[in-house]
Formats: sequence, structure tokens, C-alpha cells
Amino acid sequence: MELVVLGAAAGGGLPQWNCAGGQSSRVWAGSLEPQTQASVAVGSKETGYVVINASPDLRQQIILAPQLHPKPKHPDGVRNTPIKGVVVTNADVDNVAGLLNLREKQDLAIYGPTKVLEILRDNPIFEVLDPDFVKQYPLETNEVIRPIKGLEIELFNVAGKAPLYLEESLGSESGHLGFTSGIELRTSSSKTLIISSCAELDQVLLERISTADNLLFDGTVFEDKEMQNFGLGVKTGRRMGHLPISAADGPIAQIANHPVFRKLFFHINNSNPIWDNESDEYKTIQKAGWDICRDGMVIDL
Amino acid sequence: MELVVLGAAAGGGLPQWNCAGGQSSRVWAGSLEPQTQASVAVGSKETGYVVINASPDLRQQIILAPQLHPKPKHPDGVRNTPIKGVVVTNADVDNVAGLLNLREKQDLAIYGPTKVLEILRDNPIFEVLDPDFVKQYPLETNEVIRPIKGLEIELFNVAGKAPLYLEESLGSESGHLGFTSGIELRTSSSKTLIISSCAELDQVLLERISTADNLLFDGTVFEDKEMQNFGLGVKTGRRMGHLPISAADGPIAQIANHPVFRKLFFHINNSNPIWDNESDEYKTIQKAGWDICRDGMVIDL
Repeated sequence: MELVVLGAAAGGGLPQWNCAGGQSSRVWAGSLEPQTQASVAVGSKETGYVVINASPDLRQQIILAPQLHPKPKHPDGVRNTPIKGVVVTNADVDNVAGLLNLREKQDLAIYGPTKVLEILRDNPIFEVLDPDFVKQYPLETNEVIRPIKGLEIELFNVAGKAPLYLEESLGSESGHLGFTSGIELRTSSSKTLIISSCAELDQVLLERISTADNLLFDGTVFEDKEMQNFGLGVKTGRRMGHLPISAADGPIAQIANHPVFRKLFFHINNSNPIWDNESDEYKTIQKAGWDICRDGMVIDL
Repeated sequence: MELVVLGAAAGGGLPQWNCAGGQSSRVWAGSLEPQTQASVAVGSKETGYVVINASPDLRQQIILAPQLHPKPKHPDGVRNTPIKGVVVTNADVDNVAGLLNLREKQDLAIYGPTKVLEILRDNPIFEVLDPDFVKQYPLETNEVIRPIKGLEIELFNVAGKAPLYLEESLGSESGHLGFTSGIELRTSSSKTLIISSCAELDQVLLERISTADNLLFDGTVFEDKEMQNFGLGVKTGRRMGHLPISAADGPIAQIANHPVFRKLFFHINNSNPIWDNESDEYKTIQKAGWDICRDGMVIDL
């Protein structure tokens, strides 16, 4: 079984459409490869694949990933897909907008926290996913699903905040539970955690991380004030619900002594200098035993 | 002033994510170039650009169109864009989902028929477009706007149907007015019509077409039963609100005697054989004085 990084960048992608600063400027100038918005596919040729989060770039990501192409001479007919289901971890545009690409009367299962699926239901545009074909499965916290053979998925609560477009009604604090989730993937030979959004590394979460073989962790910002430092906006990483990589309570410091085999930053913002292999910040994460995800990376599970 | 074809394909794009048949199969096999979903940008370096319809592929389309890149050393700061506004002609996913890519606190104007903007308002997810930055302008039928210097845009009613996700409440008939619009672009030297969805070529529309220099017209299907013929689905072109290219009441027959300088099919479905230069259907449209749009094509206006 394998994990394919369909997109490694945080919301907005790299480059961001309206940004000539930060790391986006390097992409516009041609010196850094563009990266699409955070999503992974997990599965195998035999079992089919599950997509974790449906980024707005999903159509392009499918075209770039041969594993996810439909097959000629398929028993289902010319309309077929290796994608058996999608798990959404929160209701941010970055994680759900790609569902709109999965129209066209295709059998599919969508799994997500009850609260997240309720938010989708409040938006009639998602009714393009014809319920005769697309079944939604609301998940309780810590419920375990087996969407394809040989893969167990558990969603668990992570401290986060309400989607940007619901901040006015639900508040913008970062301590909320139930809006965002981490994912634990278990195969017969490994345990992998995907935590693309995390406002706080508490003891329970650190204990779960200590048992993982692979960790894909929220790498949105290196420094809390990075957006301001690059003139990209006024919000801090914490205000956006993300723990800065370099903070004392952040992943480098807190996960240092955990025996995770492979530690990768994922969901990396276009402001973050770790995109650049030559940066001091990239060297810092490397020294601490971390690397970054890039589009197309494959991890054996 | 120029018109840039950002995407030439109908909803789903070419290839369609879950389709190994029709023309999609040629793209998966590498013998036909992929095409993104229908959208154009109109403007110039001096005036900035207006995007007509926000396809789900808009982020990728901006990256591929140097005209739409943000600029370094811009008076607005590192966050800037040549995109001044977006006109949406109907509320189909194909035409509005791309608006979700235009978040990130950027001044922008969105124009569209009153009914279409009301549908957007019924979907809270579009509140990611912060109203402090993104202004919505509902348009009356035949209202003329001048979103950038030197360009007049008029929206006019075209027979069409309600968006797929609202068919249950609004009906699936194709005769409805108000759900879909054509666009007339007027510069000091030319008149261009963009009609990406059209269920009926009535006398009023034919008269308007006869005054145009350039015509981008609904090329969804060549034959009404094309989807069925390729085993791609049960719906006819007409059931989807699109007049078949080859029908007696369709564009080749009805627009034959109109002195339009340049006639191009646009919004072409992945089932349509005109994508293939070698097909009989492509030769038929060529003989009738038509060609097809492709991603990246530029037309001087």
C-alpha cells in the first residue's frame, strides 16, 4: 500500500494567485516548482484509493497521478475510477472545494466529522454530488473505518478553528474541537498520521504521535509572524489555527524525542521559507530530523 | 485589447476525471492535449483583465496565463492581481466554483445576473470572498457595464436551464430564461459574443449574432445522442440545455449565412469528436467556416 502526496501546499497553493511575494515570487520567476493544495491518496492498484481531503486542485491532481486515472476496458464501463472514497477532515475551502470536481454520477463514499458534513449540507452547491451515487458517512470522534481492504482510518480531534467563512457566526478562536481532525492510517505494517491543521500539541496528541511510523504534520508557517514579515497579511499563524514550526510549543521542539521513523511537514504555506532547500529554515528542520512533502512524493505504508 | 481562452472545455474538462471513453481516452493515452474548463480573460496589460466565468480550474489557468500573474514592485504591494473583476453567466459549478480560488482579501468585482448572485448567497461557502474586498454587482438583463477602460460588456438572456444542483426545486426544462446568459464584448474596434450555453437559437439571438465580428459559441456536443453513443451517460445534449452542433436548428445550419468574421466553438464536451483534428466532425465544422477554441488561444479584439 502507498501514500501519494497529491498536493503539499497550504490553502492558496504555491504560488498564490494574487501574491508576488514570499515563496510565490520564486515560482512566478521560474526558480521554484509550483505545488498544489494539500491532499493525499492512499491505497494500491489492487484495492483502489482513498483521497484524504478534496483540495480545489483535485482535478489537476488526478490528471498528474497515474494511480488515479480511470482504466480502459473496466468492468464498470468507460466511466470508472480507482477512487473509492474521500475523507474530509474539516470544512475549509481548501479541504472540500475539490468535491465539486467529483460530480458525474460516480459511486463514491464521503466520510467526515458530523459537523463538517452538516456544513456541506448547508451549501446546496454540493448537491451536484448526486446522493444516488455519492453516499455521505458522518463519523464520530475516534470511529474507525475500513474504506478499502487492508486500510484502517481513524479520525481524531485536533485543536483548530471554525472555517474562515463561518468565523462570524462560530467565532475565530483556535481552541475549538470538532472542526478539524487528524487522520491515523493503519496498514498491516505501519501507522501513519496526517495532521494538516493543528493549533496545539497537547499530551494526548504527543502520545499518539510517539506510536507512529510516518508523520505528516502541519507545516503552514515557520514563524508565527511570517505573513507579516513578508508583507503578505496581518494574520499570525496561530490566528489561522496553526502552530508555528519553530515555536517552543511547536513540532520541532515538542516532537524531538519521539521515535517517529519519518517526519514530514505538509500543508506548507506559500510564505514559508522551508520550500527553499537553500534556506536557513530548511536546514533547521533537516537538522531536527524533518523534511518536507512535495507534490508527487510516494511513501510506502 | 485581447481575449485569452483560459479554458475551452465544457464542465468536467478534457479529460473528465472518471472517464476512460470518448475523447478523454486519447488524453489519458497521451495523444491529445488536456484542456481546462471554459473561461476567458479579456483586457490588456494597461487596463487589467476581466474573467468571464470562474471555472473550477481557475487557479491552474491563472498560473498558465502570464497576463494574469501578480507583479513584483506593484503600487498595491506584494499582493496584487491584473484581474479586476469576474463576470458569471450562470450558477453552474463549471462557472462559479473557481470563485473559491479568488479568496485572500483581494479587491475584486463580481458581476452576474441577479438570480445567479442570489444562488451564490444561498451557499455560505462563498463567504470566503470577504465582502470588504469583493463587491457583488447584480445585473439586469441587457445592462451594460464598463469594468475596465475601453471595454463594454452586455449580458443578454439565452434559453437555458437551471443549474444541475437546483433541478429538483426549479425543474430541468431547457426553455427557462434568467439562469444563463450570453456575453457581448464591445471594444472600439470589434464586437465579440460569448455564448457558452444555448438551448435555442431564436430570431433575436440570430440577429445579434449577425452583427458580431467574433463568435464563441456553445460546442458542447456535435450530436444530440453523442453521450449515449460513447457509453458516457444517458442524457442528450438538449437535456443538458445545449443545442447540438449538427442539428437542423443548431449553429452550423442556422449561422451559415451570417457574416461573422470568426466563428469558434467553445465549451466543448469531452465526448465531442471535434477535439480531434482528424475526425470527420472536425472537417465538417471547418467546411462550414468554424474552428474550435483551445486553451491559451489569444484573439485580438
